[in-house]
Amino acid sequence: MTLTEQPAHNGVDVETLFATIDAVKANPQIAAFRFRADNQWLSGTNSRTTIYTFYGAMQELTHVEPRSYDADHPAVLTGKDRGSTPVEFLLHALAACLTAGLANIAAARGVRLTEVTSTVEGDIDLMGLLGLDPAVRNGYQGIRVSFRLRGDDPDALRRAFDQSVARSAVLDVLSNGVPVAIDVDAG
Amino acid sequence: MTLTEQPAHNGVDVETLFATIDAVKANPQIAAFRFRADNQWLSGTNSRTTIYTFYGAMQELTHVEPRSYDADHPAVLTGKDRGSTPVEFLLHALAACLTAGLANIAAARGVRLTEVTSTVEGDIDLMGLLGLDPAVRNGYQGIRVSFRLRGDDPDALRRAFDQSVARSAVLDVLSNGVPVAIDVDAG
Repeated sequence: MTLTEQPAHNGVDVETLFATIDAVKANPQIAAFRFRADNQWLSGTNSRTTIYTFYGAMQELTHVEPRSYDADHPAVLTGKDRGSTPVEFLLHALAACLTAGLANIAAARGVRLTEVTSTVEGDIDLMGLLGLDPAVRNGYQGIRVSFRLRGDDPDALRRAFDQSVARSAVLDVLSNGVPVAIDVDAG
Repeated sequence: MTLTEQPAHNGVDVETLFATIDAVKANPQIAAFRFRADNQWLSGTNSRTTIYTFYGAMQELTHVEPRSYDADHPAVLTGKDRGSTPVEFLLHALAACLTAGLANIAAARGVRLTEVTSTVEGDIDLMGLLGLDPAVRNGYQGIRVSFRLRGDDPDALRRAFDQSVARSAVLDVLSNGVPVAIDVDAG
């Protein structure tokens, strides 16, 4: 790789990306991943999640370090504001997933990105989760995503973005839902 | 409030919680909230989200401080592992939402919590998002939530937890999906 080629890769290791795709084609078991989060209640609406281990490529793996994230409610929602709210982390996940996908796809296509920023907003009516109106859902009623992309080829950027939208794991889950099984041990 | 009463409140300001519910009953416009996340691409699959402002109680509000979260892919998924993956943040959001709801509901009912821990796992088959098998979805195929609750009254704890499940904003979104509108400015 030369320095003049590098910018088009957007910081993405394209050789590894293609090697990963080839490896999965050869052995689909490599593609079975399991991600985890461990949470501990601290006080009030404040809890802390640690993310470290995951399963993939037919083995238990770890991130380079354990990472912890506090979540809480702001004062207006009876919390101490010791972290972002759980529903805000959903918006973060969506922005980050679409951005990572775009960077990978643009790199694979040799499309150079110079700037990607986004804002994600979600509307929620607390009449639902407070149990005050059974016609109102608990969660977001709608989410709006706004992306600004800059690079050498606006049309190619837009097509790469459309492909990221078509392949986003987080967008799929938020748009279509996923079965959630819940087990509780109360003692 | 006396010291002997405090433990049953689980660190939750119950008076404010009930005052909030009464205020919303009196003026439902207070219940319209809008949360936001601003994301900036850094390099490769690494991006950074900042969460600070939100709208609620009929005004623009801010958290006590801006908070930033990096997301990235691990090396095995062609990233530099400079943050947790977007799909892991979904698991964090779910654990934190159910835990915050439980703490509030238990406090409102005078049920004392001494320990709440949870693990959330999600299974994903990369054949979908890599575009290698059109029959496989991009996102999680299933999520499993496992909670351990300890306190003075296991039955009451379990009922409070069931109510948190019934009222969780994040569980609703992940289980049922939400309309997502996407706008892109490519230049």
